[in-house]
Amino acid sequence: MQPRIHVVTLAVDDLERALAFYRDGLGLESPGIGGTEFVGDDQNPGGAVAMFKLEGGLILSLYGRSDLAKDAGIPVSPSVVGEFSLGHAVASRDAVDALLATAVAAGGQAMGPPHERPWGIYSAYFRDPDGHLWEIIYNPGFELSPT
Amino acid sequence: MQPRIHVVTLAVDDLERALAFYRDGLGLESPGIGGTEFVGDDQNPGGAVAMFKLEGGLILSLYGRSDLAKDAGIPVSPSVVGEFSLGHAVASRDAVDALLATAVAAGGQAMGPPHERPWGIYSAYFRDPDGHLWEIIYNPGFELSPT
Repeated sequence: MQPRIHVVTLAVDDLERALAFYRDGLGLESPGIGGTEFVGDDQNPGGAVAMFKLEGGLILSLYGRSDLAKDAGIPVSPSVVGEFSLGHAVASRDAVDALLATAVAAGGQAMGPPHERPWGIYSAYFRDPDGHLWEIIYNPGFELSPT
Repeated sequence: MQPRIHVVTLAVDDLERALAFYRDGLGLESPGIGGTEFVGDDQNPGGAVAMFKLEGGLILSLYGRSDLAKDAGIPVSPSVVGEFSLGHAVASRDAVDALLATAVAAGGQAMGPPHERPWGIYSAYFRDPDGHLWEIIYNPGFELSPT
């Protein structure tokens, strides 16, 4: 396998709500919900999806929970937190605090205050409106691309 | 927020098993398990982690399920599939079939045979040993970096 992930797809209960959180709340750019012409049914997933082009060619994709389940051939499960987290690095401790505040203002849930880890990073977690975990990380050893 | 994900962390029940799947089974390069000098306890997460540097600066990180829960301040939950999927694009239908076979040989579980989606892609899902979903995608519209 090539060492690459092209798409991170998050299962969401409400596509409009999730889009609003990431686009309007966190400021990521998206053309909005596409693929609505592909209507699903009991067996087949619909195509409605919201995508965000991230740096490095990565795509963050929001997709209905039941559509993802049908597409993958698995039962629909209620949301559970803790299967994974997405790490977003920032350039300072202050930037961790600031982004956490932004996420909370946008409707995310802070999982406690930011704090130092024994392995040398300062970070905070929040959950998006569907419960998906993000970690905001200040790691002095990380090389960040210029903004 | 910058449009970037730096780390995708997967919660795993058995770090050695997960490392073997991704490194030995799928062929991703990793220096192995690090951070073991940071020993956790009932309250604090340990630091043991296995990382893979992917293209575009992204890191795939395998981290103990209970360590992630402690780090994020959430209860430990049993594994549930369907919260997210990681999409890996390949250059042909044959490559989808081949990578699915590789993943199954490595101990992954195929979620049915590859098939065409109405939105113009050919894909197959598999679960890793911890149940995390990957979608192997052939999308004629995707631009793949040269290998």
